[in-house]
This record gives sequence, C-alpha cells and structure tokens, in this order.
Amino acid sequence: MGHPYAKEKADLLTRLRRIEGQVRGVQKMIEEDRYCVDLLTQLAAIKNATHKVALSILEAHTRGCVADAIHHHTSEDEKIDELMDVIRQFIK
Amino acid sequence: MGHPYAKEKADLLTRLRRIEGQVRGVQKMIEEDRYCVDLLTQLAAIKNATHKVALSILEAHTRGCVADAIHHHTSEDEKIDELMDVIRQFIK
Amino acid sequence: MGHPYAKEKADLLTRLRRIEGQVRGVQKMIEEDRYCVDLLTQLAAIKNATHKVALSILEAHTRGCVADAIHHHTSEDEKIDELMDVIRQFIK
Amino acid sequence: MGHPYAKEKADLLTRLRRIEGQVRGVQKMIEEDRYCVDLLTQLAAIKNATHKVALSILEAHTRGCVADAIHHHTSEDEKIDELMDVIRQFIK
Repeated sequence: MGHPYAKEKADLLTRLRRIEGQVRGVQKMIEEDRYCVDLLTQLAAIKNATHKVALSILEAHTRGCVADAIHHHTSEDEKIDELMDVIRQFIK
Repeated sequence: MGHPYAKEKADLLTRLRRIEGQVRGVQKMIEEDRYCVDLLTQLAAIKNATHKVALSILEAHTRGCVADAIHHHTSEDEKIDELMDVIRQFIK
Repeated sequence: MGHPYAKEKADLLTRLRRIEGQVRGVQKMIEEDRYCVDLLTQLAAIKNATHKVALSILEAHTRGCVADAIHHHTSEDEKIDELMDVIRQFIK
Repeated sequence: MGHPYAKEKADLLTRLRRIEGQVRGVQKMIEEDRYCVDLLTQLAAIKNATHKVALSILEAHTRGCVADAIHHHTSEDEKIDELMDVIRQFIK
C-alpha cells in the first residue's frame, strides 16, 4: 500500500504552506513590535489550522492503514495502539 | 508603552523559526509519502510549540499591557475583555 | 455484538464516580467562597479525567465497533465518519 | 476581599449541577451498555461545559484578585505566576 493521503496530498501541501506563511507572519509582527493580542489571535489561527491538517491525516490513516491492517489481520493491535498514542498527544 | 515582550523577543523569534522549520519538515514528509503517524507526531509537536509561544506572549501581555491598564485605570475592562476573548480561542 | 467496553466497565464507572465527586467538590468550594485558583485547579483535574475516560472509550470503540465494521465490510465508511466526528469534538 | 465570583455564584452552581447530572448520565449509559459514540458525545459536552465554567471563574479571578493585587502592588508577580500556572493546565 502507498500513502493513504494520496488524494489529499495537494490540498495538505497548500494548507501547510499557508500555515508556514502564518508562522512567518507572526515573526514579522514580533519584529515590528506589534500588539500582543494580535500575535495571540494569529497563534490561535495556526493552532486551529494545524489541528485541521492533523484531523485530515488522522482520517486518511484510519481509512487507509488502520482499515488495511484490520482487513488483513496484520499487526491490527499494534496499529490501534499507535493510533491511540498519537491521538493522546492531541487530547490532553 | 512599547511592546511588553521586548525581553523575550529574540527567544520568541528563535522558537517561531523552529516552528516554521517543523512546518516545512511536514511538507517534505508529505512529498516523500512518509508514514501518517510520523506526520501526526510532528503536527502534535507543532501544536505544542505553538501553545508554548502563545503562553509566553500571554504572560508578557498580562504582566505588561493588562497590568498597565489596571494601574492607570485606563480601559481596564476592555483590556480584560480582550484578554478573555483570546484565551477562549485556546480553551475550547 | 455487545458493548466493546465490557472489560473496562467497572473501571470506567469508578472513574466517572470520582469525576462526579470532583464536580460536587467544586460546588462545595464555591458555596464556601473558596479561592478562584483552587477552583480552577480542580476544574483542570476534571477536564483531564474526562479526557482520559474518553480516550479509554475511544480505544475500546476502535478495537471493537470500528474493527468489527471493517472486518465485515458493513457500514465501514459510516463508522469511520462517525468516529472522526466525535474526535473533532475533542481536537479543536 | 471576598470571592470575586460573588455575582456569578448562583449561575456557576447551576452549571456545575448540570455537569454533575451529565456525569451521572454517562454512568447510567455505561450500565445500560449504550453505544460508545453516544458516550463520547456526552463526554465532549462535559468537557465543553467544564471549560466554560473555568473561563467564567478565570475572568472573575482576573477582574477581581489579579486586578486587586496590581492596584495595591501586593504580590502582583506571584498572582500572575499563579494565574499562568493554572492557564497552562488548560492550554497543553
């Protein structure tokens, strides 16, 4: 099996380039001594966009790799352990 | 008053450049069809690092702008409204 | 299929009873006009404990219902849609 | 100074009693072997409601205790340290 996010690849790259631009934007705002609350609003937007990219990859992973492992009974438990470990990094 | 994060400016910029590098790293991983769970782990690290930068700016803002407004009784209520609005974007 | 959290049932109930006690504890603290920061610390503990119960059920659900649907090719897509919708309520 | 959440006291208690009811509701659902996704939806609602109570107390605390400490220059730094520590428990 290839990468389960093949179909979303272009979309994910576009979204990540936008996040990269937002992160550079915050650097510029700091260099220009911009107001804290504007920085914080921008950082919240970066966090939200990062969560959305993560949810898209999580969905592709579940439909692809996890479902595949379950179908073929290959390392099914390990795949679900791994999935839960990474979800735990987001739900704290 | 200038920017309350003057002292942390260099540190904040270093951390944001590192986040920018991590975001570019995820793009590269996607282009190389890397494993979903590795992408997700990296995205969780970006989220954590973004939260930490936000907490530093939030602290500087509270010690600086908010305390200043309270001392001088100038738009104290507005400053706290604004602070709460931005915190609400992180605690959902 | 029954409930996939059969094995954890007693443990989940114990943890939820503890959360219920913590929620009642905060009510008591408010009635006694206790210090805000102590209330907030207790509310953070309730949030953390709620997340942990949710992660346990999420894991049981993925190993049980989702894997089951995938094995039997029965409403596999719907199950994963449903799973993602509920995860989205926690990753915002 | 008394408790800065005096005005919201009745409202906070109502909301916490509702959360307590929701936590008991999840226990009942588990005893009845209800569907995982319904449990998770309910747990997300508990988390959301807990966050909202925390934000109300955080706001009262900032307007009350923190502003008070800043006005009187009494343990201003300690109050803000304490505030940041508790916010950090919610933004992870």
